[in-house]
Amino acid sequence: MASLLLNPIFSPISLFHTHSASLHFSKPFSISLSQSHSIKCSLSHRPDYFPNRIPDPSYIRIFDTTLRDGEQSPGATMTSKEKLDIARQLARLGVDIIEAGFPAASHDDLDAVKMIAKEVGNYISEDGHIPVICGLARCNKSDIDAAWEAVRFAKRPRIHTFIATSEIHLTHKLRKSREEVVDIVREMVAYARSLGCDDVDFSPEDAGRSDKEFLYLVLEEAIKAGATTLNIPDTVGFTLPSEFGQLIADIKSNTHGIENVIISTHCQNDLGLATANTLDGALAGARQLEVTINGIGERAGNASLEEVVMAIKCRGKELMGGLYTRINTKHIVMASKMVAEYSGLQVQPHKAIVGANAFAHESGIHQDGMLKFKGTYEIISPEDIGLNRSNESGIVLGKLSGRHALRSRLLELGYELDGKELDDVFWRFKAIAEKKKHLSDLDLEALISDEIFQPQVIWSLGDLQVTCGTLGLSTSTVKLIGVDGVEHIACSVGTGPVDAAYKAIDSIVKVPVTLLEYSMNSVTEGIDAIASTRVVIRGDNSHTSMHALTGETVHRTFSGTGAGMDIVVSSVRAYVSALNKMLGFKHTPVKKTSSETSRVSA
Amino acid sequence: MASLLLNPIFSPISLFHTHSASLHFSKPFSISLSQSHSIKCSLSHRPDYFPNRIPDPSYIRIFDTTLRDGEQSPGATMTSKEKLDIARQLARLGVDIIEAGFPAASHDDLDAVKMIAKEVGNYISEDGHIPVICGLARCNKSDIDAAWEAVRFAKRPRIHTFIATSEIHLTHKLRKSREEVVDIVREMVAYARSLGCDDVDFSPEDAGRSDKEFLYLVLEEAIKAGATTLNIPDTVGFTLPSEFGQLIADIKSNTHGIENVIISTHCQNDLGLATANTLDGALAGARQLEVTINGIGERAGNASLEEVVMAIKCRGKELMGGLYTRINTKHIVMASKMVAEYSGLQVQPHKAIVGANAFAHESGIHQDGMLKFKGTYEIISPEDIGLNRSNESGIVLGKLSGRHALRSRLLELGYELDGKELDDVFWRFKAIAEKKKHLSDLDLEALISDEIFQPQVIWSLGDLQVTCGTLGLSTSTVKLIGVDGVEHIACSVGTGPVDAAYKAIDSIVKVPVTLLEYSMNSVTEGIDAIASTRVVIRGDNSHTSMHALTGETVHRTFSGTGAGMDIVVSSVRAYVSALNKMLGFKHTPVKKTSSETSRVSA
Repeated sequence: MASLLLNPIFSPISLFHTHSASLHFSKPFSISLSQSHSIKCSLSHRPDYFPNRIPDPSYIRIFDTTLRDGEQSPGATMTSKEKLDIARQLARLGVDIIEAGFPAASHDDLDAVKMIAKEVGNYISEDGHIPVICGLARCNKSDIDAAWEAVRFAKRPRIHTFIATSEIHLTHKLRKSREEVVDIVREMVAYARSLGCDDVDFSPEDAGRSDKEFLYLVLEEAIKAGATTLNIPDTVGFTLPSEFGQLIADIKSNTHGIENVIISTHCQNDLGLATANTLDGALAGARQLEVTINGIGERAGNASLEEVVMAIKCRGKELMGGLYTRINTKHIVMASKMVAEYSGLQVQPHKAIVGANAFAHESGIHQDGMLKFKGTYEIISPEDIGLNRSNESGIVLGKLSGRHALRSRLLELGYELDGKELDDVFWRFKAIAEKKKHLSDLDLEALISDEIFQPQVIWSLGDLQVTCGTLGLSTSTVKLIGVDGVEHIACSVGTGPVDAAYKAIDSIVKVPVTLLEYSMNSVTEGIDAIASTRVVIRGDNSHTSMHALTGETVHRTFSGTGAGMDIVVSSVRAYVSALNKMLGFKHTPVKKTSSETSRVSA
Repeated sequence: MASLLLNPIFSPISLFHTHSASLHFSKPFSISLSQSHSIKCSLSHRPDYFPNRIPDPSYIRIFDTTLRDGEQSPGATMTSKEKLDIARQLARLGVDIIEAGFPAASHDDLDAVKMIAKEVGNYISEDGHIPVICGLARCNKSDIDAAWEAVRFAKRPRIHTFIATSEIHLTHKLRKSREEVVDIVREMVAYARSLGCDDVDFSPEDAGRSDKEFLYLVLEEAIKAGATTLNIPDTVGFTLPSEFGQLIADIKSNTHGIENVIISTHCQNDLGLATANTLDGALAGARQLEVTINGIGERAGNASLEEVVMAIKCRGKELMGGLYTRINTKHIVMASKMVAEYSGLQVQPHKAIVGANAFAHESGIHQDGMLKFKGTYEIISPEDIGLNRSNESGIVLGKLSGRHALRSRLLELGYELDGKELDDVFWRFKAIAEKKKHLSDLDLEALISDEIFQPQVIWSLGDLQVTCGTLGLSTSTVKLIGVDGVEHIACSVGTGPVDAAYKAIDSIVKVPVTLLEYSMNSVTEGIDAIASTRVVIRGDNSHTSMHALTGETVHRTFSGTGAGMDIVVSSVRAYVSALNKMLGFKHTPVKKTSSETSRVSA
């Protein structure tokens, strides 16, 4: 069983006891001692937490909604276990508020939020920080009940409730008058408070396109009813930075009682301006910024945590009146990798901060300028975000390396493995080391990811045999072992080796599945690289959830990953992994809501 | 042979006669007639071109540097043919200035710029627009000579010369005094003009971190010496939007003679703020914006054309004082696909405007809001950027479809194929239609991409036979056909089927190659999907180029793609394609410059 590595500063983390393996990051927090132009960690104190005020006016709260808004991206469905892993990583990052999900969407969603509230919501770091655990709810009693039922186990629970306020949404989606909306807001915010929740966040959806006078009115009613944070979303990603900043400034100037609550931003990225809009929101007075890791989210996603946090870290003191966050940026790279892996939303090579090329120059060879003075072309040092340069991490293990060497290296990489987990990884390691002379850190991470980031095993791969090419009929024979230990063997022809193997698996597993996505990447250079495959599947209609903003039923999709030196084998591993994830998903049907009732918001 | 489809408005394009196949886009330009909240094409006239002034003060020139700054991204090396294809697409987009390359980097770079100057630089659209063709040069005579040698064949040639002006670059990279830099700028801008080039763009590199008084002085000298555009780069992507806007405003207020030239922006994206910085630059008075398709470029890339252009199109009238461009946005999607394909830099699913999810909601099922009123969640209609929704494009062809049906559908997709090209695609189409019931537009595009976007054929794949799996030794047998028609057969074992096949190919082709990247995606849903594989390889040291900013020698890398229903076959096709690209590359060695001489800028 894996246990969390203690961080020398943030300890003890004793509440992180779990029976599932999870990703651990062991690098100690330390001040960057690099060149004068790289970034220094702020040592500012994190102010005490009060729902509706921040003792230090320069402090910015980071509200991460990767698990709610991010998870609603196409294909990004995560299991409860994956959500818990990410929530832990968010706690390590020092995120102030973790929006853990939309509990009314399904029982699975509710359970995931509850688990995060219990485990991560009771984590106390040495500086006294406890992440707020937040659940989303539409402005109706059953949603708010579900949210409270899930978050109330956290030390700092929050309910986040929303309703649209733009004319276009009122007319076309809600079909309500302005007066009706104001009544709903007043009643539902008060209802959330009445449950015992003293931390209520209210969002006027599509605020960016709402009539300002009506917006002020709605916000005033929310404050009077007990809201402690007012989140201003630019739902369609339509605003320019100056415009969004002005919106926040106007709200601050024109809303009675606004001085007693926190203003928050939530910017979609449809025009590529989410990060800039968020920063202008902060400059105009917002003190909570809603973001996601890697900027994932519906359509073009949200403002990304890493961009917003690093911009404030780089320029907050000089250009933003001393604004600062308490995000421990050294955990950014691991958070980014984990979210990319679990959500299946890979970041592009030129993604700011976390893209593969973000710190690379052409061919990795343009090092001259860097050696002369790192600041010439680089303003953030890779170490600031927890990135080890690949040429520094180097090649570390070979086929003669033993279990102890493997365990030590994994420990350095942040994974503490023991017992069966270590055995399994070691066995795979030796099998690959037999064929590949040296295994780099990247190889090890791919293996770990394959072994650890796997769902509950229902079917496991025994053997696989494949014949294919341009000349004949592609044929695969597959041996799967069921949860009962019984071996099943099937063969099939197909249009290619993967098609043949998947058909053979289907003939054993016998559940209807549609393959939605299939992708593969080599994780290291060289022809003998380890290939990492990812598939996304959709099962039958019993795997459903509800969309937060529209209330519509959406079909769950499940991703699986597999690693190996044989691309057909890794493809099969990925497919079996996705099947296991789907079969293990608690597909309690969503409470039946017709599309008509779902529109009724109270 | 392919010929360019005539656009009913922009015709004739008779100068686009070429012997190579290229990508064509046939959709006629038309005004969007969708809902009131979607975007209308601006019908503003494109002002006449004068190097140093724009008759309409609201007109924004778009300067695309995909082929120069974008191509210098790691792994993004393109062949001359690929560069020419992209330059043509940029002309279709209506880009004002195409920066076609850095001619001093290598003879291959010079030849590519020259070819683009000759072919695309003489293209006259019906509205009289002729794209300016620009070549980059450091501030030294040999670079400027090379740039002029390449661009002078265009109707509107431009030389873009640059030198660093920030203290950090002066001290650590150039090792020159301020006085020396001013002298170099004065002499080299005048030298460029003296060659007969009346359109000279000057960039003070790292302007964002330069001392402002010194910057004004350098710019004044450049203007006096004959510069017609002054480009202000935020080289390290360090500035915030308001700060960059202020920099442009300050330059506008404090530089003598600035009213006689065009101010330009060039924003790197290191903090995710490139688009916002660019827009703030325009608001502050810049009238040329440097961008790249998909935002590619070194590190986190540049401001992306599609984001900047769509932001101006959406909000220019209302919030930016009526600023407008004359980009024909319906060509954006095709440009994005082409650049992703050629550069190998795929865009993330949540990339603004052009990402796969940019117009998609969860599971593609959340259509209710969209059907009610598209404007509820969407401000740009997919048709505005040339995107057909996949559920509208549907399934169009099956195995009974004939050559005519295929040709017609391809025509609708924008590809005009005849003769051998059509035969080749039709043959592949039939082979796949035998196995896959229906072929969608995406399938067809993958096939076209595989057939058309291929380098000169030196080796072609005959047959392939593979055995692999968990049980035995992976073995591949490959038959390659040389350019002389001779068949070569080799077999090899390997750690997996692809490793085995690549080793067999290596034993035939006999050139030293390192595989740097390997990735695969299925292009359509379903287990019988077509897989598209991409590899990046590096050959020996003879394939070198020079880095524009550092003057250092960089090693060329070559990408290849392959499509097919058998992932091993598509992997082999991709490898053969990359090998062909590498073997066809004119690897004239770069003129020897030690890292010392490369620093001497005049």
